[in-house]
Amino acid sequence: MAKVDYRQTGVDIDAGNEAVRRIKNLARATYTKGVVSGVGSFGGLFALDGSIADPILVASADGVGTKLKIAFMTGIHDTVGADLVNHCVNDILVQGARPLFFLDYLATGKLSPEVAEHIVRGISRACVENGCALLGGETAEMPGFYASGEYDVAGFIVGVVSKARMIDGSRIVAGDQLVALPSDGLHTNGYSLARGIAFDVLKLSVESHVADLGETVGAALLRPHRSYWPEVGPLLDKGWIKGMAHITGGGITENVPRMLPEGRTFSLDSNSWTIPPLFQWLQRSGQLDEPEMFRAFNMGVGLVLACAPADLSALLAALPRAWRLGSID
Amino acid sequence: MAKVDYRQTGVDIDAGNEAVRRIKNLARATYTKGVVSGVGSFGGLFALDGSIADPILVASADGVGTKLKIAFMTGIHDTVGADLVNHCVNDILVQGARPLFFLDYLATGKLSPEVAEHIVRGISRACVENGCALLGGETAEMPGFYASGEYDVAGFIVGVVSKARMIDGSRIVAGDQLVALPSDGLHTNGYSLARGIAFDVLKLSVESHVADLGETVGAALLRPHRSYWPEVGPLLDKGWIKGMAHITGGGITENVPRMLPEGRTFSLDSNSWTIPPLFQWLQRSGQLDEPEMFRAFNMGVGLVLACAPADLSALLAALPRAWRLGSID
Repeated sequence: MAKVDYRQTGVDIDAGNEAVRRIKNLARATYTKGVVSGVGSFGGLFALDGSIADPILVASADGVGTKLKIAFMTGIHDTVGADLVNHCVNDILVQGARPLFFLDYLATGKLSPEVAEHIVRGISRACVENGCALLGGETAEMPGFYASGEYDVAGFIVGVVSKARMIDGSRIVAGDQLVALPSDGLHTNGYSLARGIAFDVLKLSVESHVADLGETVGAALLRPHRSYWPEVGPLLDKGWIKGMAHITGGGITENVPRMLPEGRTFSLDSNSWTIPPLFQWLQRSGQLDEPEMFRAFNMGVGLVLACAPADLSALLAALPRAWRLGSID
Repeated sequence: MAKVDYRQTGVDIDAGNEAVRRIKNLARATYTKGVVSGVGSFGGLFALDGSIADPILVASADGVGTKLKIAFMTGIHDTVGADLVNHCVNDILVQGARPLFFLDYLATGKLSPEVAEHIVRGISRACVENGCALLGGETAEMPGFYASGEYDVAGFIVGVVSKARMIDGSRIVAGDQLVALPSDGLHTNGYSLARGIAFDVLKLSVESHVADLGETVGAALLRPHRSYWPEVGPLLDKGWIKGMAHITGGGITENVPRMLPEGRTFSLDSNSWTIPPLFQWLQRSGQLDEPEMFRAFNMGVGLVLACAPADLSALLAALPRAWRLGSID
């Protein structure tokens, strides 16, 4: 009977410890004043600011989805962290929450401390940009689960909003206005479809330069999910924003209704913006119809905000990149 | 050029929506009074109990690891949820925290609403047992990432402890006593090694009955990770517990030192307990030496608590399953 040791089974605790050491340093760079203890403790500890009246914690879990395949194809692993953190930040921002801390889950078949460090470097950088502490995480080596060089990564965020400042769409009424902020590419949705078009239908590679896009397929598809916290966070106390929808899976079609009170619908002014070239190219190349496109992709709209007609001009003035997208019926 | 639609690429938004509907009902069953809004919102909302002085949030992220392979082999998908929740609950319990809410991340190649429902049913049940709300989660369909019928699942927990009740091991001094609570099998660690022994070395299947174990390999290896919250939670306010270590990857060897102040070491009374048959069988079958066993597996010890000598008898009396494991040097 052969002697079995842990390395033969594909799990290397020393490599895991080396990854943890590197990750600890990247996490430390993100620590905000709330952090009591972070990576290395069994649980990460965060002191809640006592000055917030009636604190409501807002939490979200997200992954990057099959956009990870673009990272694998290009060998660029430090942007998926921004995708993960920014997606999470937006998901709690739409309820009015300020990000407090983030935890990641990274699972691979065979752990490469270098790749793990690149991924966490991206997470750490995005956490700093959002004023969010990287409080902990789990790095799992799971032989036989992931193809060589592949991994999955998930993120968890907790933010806080004072009860009186909570944004839940309940005050939205007919006649209210919708404002849009632009996306940066596909963000993290529609990647199985987009990869099918680019790599299976058009037989391109990530290095292929596409004239319509003015860049390579890899550059267009790897562009990170944008965080709206830097633009929208400073406006949360103004009281203008009645509801927000983060445009993720299901597109404008399915996400705008999520912020509306029962019975309310919305109208889009489809002439209010130009669909960015990436989406036009995908639609043409995949011969997709418009409803499919609007359900699979964000179509250039990353965040939708609802406000009273009286606040529209102030909101648009405070958000230079925004435009009036439509209204509530 | 072929027309591409989302289903051809392996992503079925309707199946996803069906899974979300089923998951919503399972989540609702876990709602505690703090829940403001849960699954279906962009972010889950939880009102923090205002009566907790100086609240410290304690968070942890975990996976189930390759124990999932046992779930795939047996077709039993409703116990991995307990593994996930209970692992997370223990990781924050050791810092003195009461669980508040949990979020899950479930990733599959092709989403089966039935399997997703079984997994989340297990999560929901374990959340109820720990008084923890299932506040949200992400269900990701990622064609090409996971083998047919396989998935990965991660969990994220947030709990709370009043600053004065925080347990961090800092008060531990030489002469303090170590108390152990028994594990239920392997919990979630050492599965790559255990699977190597059971399935590669011994060529057994999950249905194989092992006389030394008195049960099948599948039953022994699928036994859920135990939560120590029901036993230990009621004792947190007693002030007896100076430190706790959750025995996970790295075993007693690596986890007990995590709770100790710099410079402190510990001694185990190896005659204080009998190594359960499962570990003896793995050691014998894999021809592993003792240090390897103690680093890869929990060896029958799921939680280690440190207390002053004067509190030992009270702690042991309050924890009928516990025994004195050793002491601090």
